Amino acid sequence: MKIGIFGTGMVGSTIGSKLVSLGHQVKMGSRTSDNKKAIDWVKANGANASHGTFSDAASFGEIIFNCTSGFGSIEAIGSAGDANLKEKILIDIANPLDFSKGMPPSLFVCNTDSLGEQIQSKFPYLKVVKTLNTVNCSVMVNPSLVPGEHDLFLCGNDDVAKEKVKKILTNWFGWKTVIDLGDITNARATEMLLPIWVRLFGKFQTPNFNFKIVK
Amino acid sequence: MKIGIFGTGMVGSTIGSKLVSLGHQVKMGSRTSDNKKAIDWVKANGANASHGTFSDAASFGEIIFNCTSGFGSIEAIGSAGDANLKEKILIDIANPLDFSKGMPPSLFVCNTDSLGEQIQSKFPYLKVVKTLNTVNCSVMVNPSLVPGEHDLFLCGNDDVAKEKVKKILTNWFGWKTVIDLGDITNARATEMLLPIWVRLFGKFQTPNFNFKIVK
Repeated sequence: MKIGIFGTGMVGSTIGSKLVSLGHQVKMGSRTSDNKKAIDWVKANGANASHGTFSDAASFGEIIFNCTSGFGSIEAIGSAGDANLKEKILIDIANPLDFSKGMPPSLFVCNTDSLGEQIQSKFPYLKVVKTLNTVNCSVMVNPSLVPGEHDLFLCGNDDVAKEKVKKILTNWFGWKTVIDLGDITNARATEMLLPIWVRLFGKFQTPNFNFKIVK
Repeated sequence: MKIGIFGTGMVGSTIGSKLVSLGHQVKMGSRTSDNKKAIDWVKANGANASHGTFSDAASFGEIIFNCTSGFGSIEAIGSAGDANLKEKILIDIANPLDFSKGMPPSLFVCNTDSLGEQIQSKFPYLKVVKTLNTVNCSVMVNPSLVPGEHDLFLCGNDDVAKEKVKKILTNWFGWKTVIDLGDITNARATEMLLPIWVRLFGKFQTPNFNFKIVK
């Protein structure tokens, strides 16, 4: 499959490399077409890896992963161009983390709204599926880094899109349990897991942990 | 031990009855000394159960459980009187849930502050330990209602108080894993678990579930 990745950071490069390793063609998008991190990532990932602007990645991808920082997400998606994104699935991994006041970060939107909802509302033609945002990027593409059973959350307004994303998560990334919370307003609930995630990361000194819902 | 309970709702009566069943003397406090729910609870729980005002319960208890609604917590504690509370441990179970805009509830404080912090800041002579607020009251006093391993979180500024509360949780209530997150600012993190808790409750149609941190 042809996949577009928005963002050249740790999350974008980890997701992108995993997808290339599975035989997919991946274009990493950023603000400019000469982004050094994107160029380095392409060099390291071979013929199925390419890079360009957000617009290039959007037009290339049959499906898009939003791996930008939360603060940059709306602008990045907006700059990709409506026509390049129309009716496409956008897997939103970004979190509205605000590090401007130091550690631990706060959320720049939460409680009665969320980044996932803001993206869906601003770009209604996108099929936004929020997922993967509650685990570290290494765990996203290799859930067995955390031993035993543990859960991933997913939400979004489009059931067909959610089923497709669920298959990507299980068949490509190896997730065993994906809990569909419901519509995109549930992004509030998963983004608000970040504060405890950050505290636990500080306590455990490893990002290789995850939540499990026991019942 | 002599224990004061603030609040006559489901949480207060469940915690109170459990403590009485363990042989402790429990005084349930509310705004007025003729609270019908408190009177009924005393009738149902025998000689070790009594009731009175918040002030009565505070002066009676060597340790206090705050089981009031989040909106009422500061006022309830304030009306109990400084002298009755001085240097005592207050186990804060309340959550800042706001149901005024319908379901799902939002939080009236979160992100950069929390109810636990507001209580500690308003009553600095209290040793506030935030815990139990991430599970249903039936699970609080009977964690085996949720099968297998699962976790309870705890935070507060006073290490000795936290150790005492940990013993109550493990020896009296049967909790196997209590994760000490650190100081009271971690109340933000556990109170912000409520949105996903509420969504999962809606999905599962049972309150008998809990979080486990897998690593």
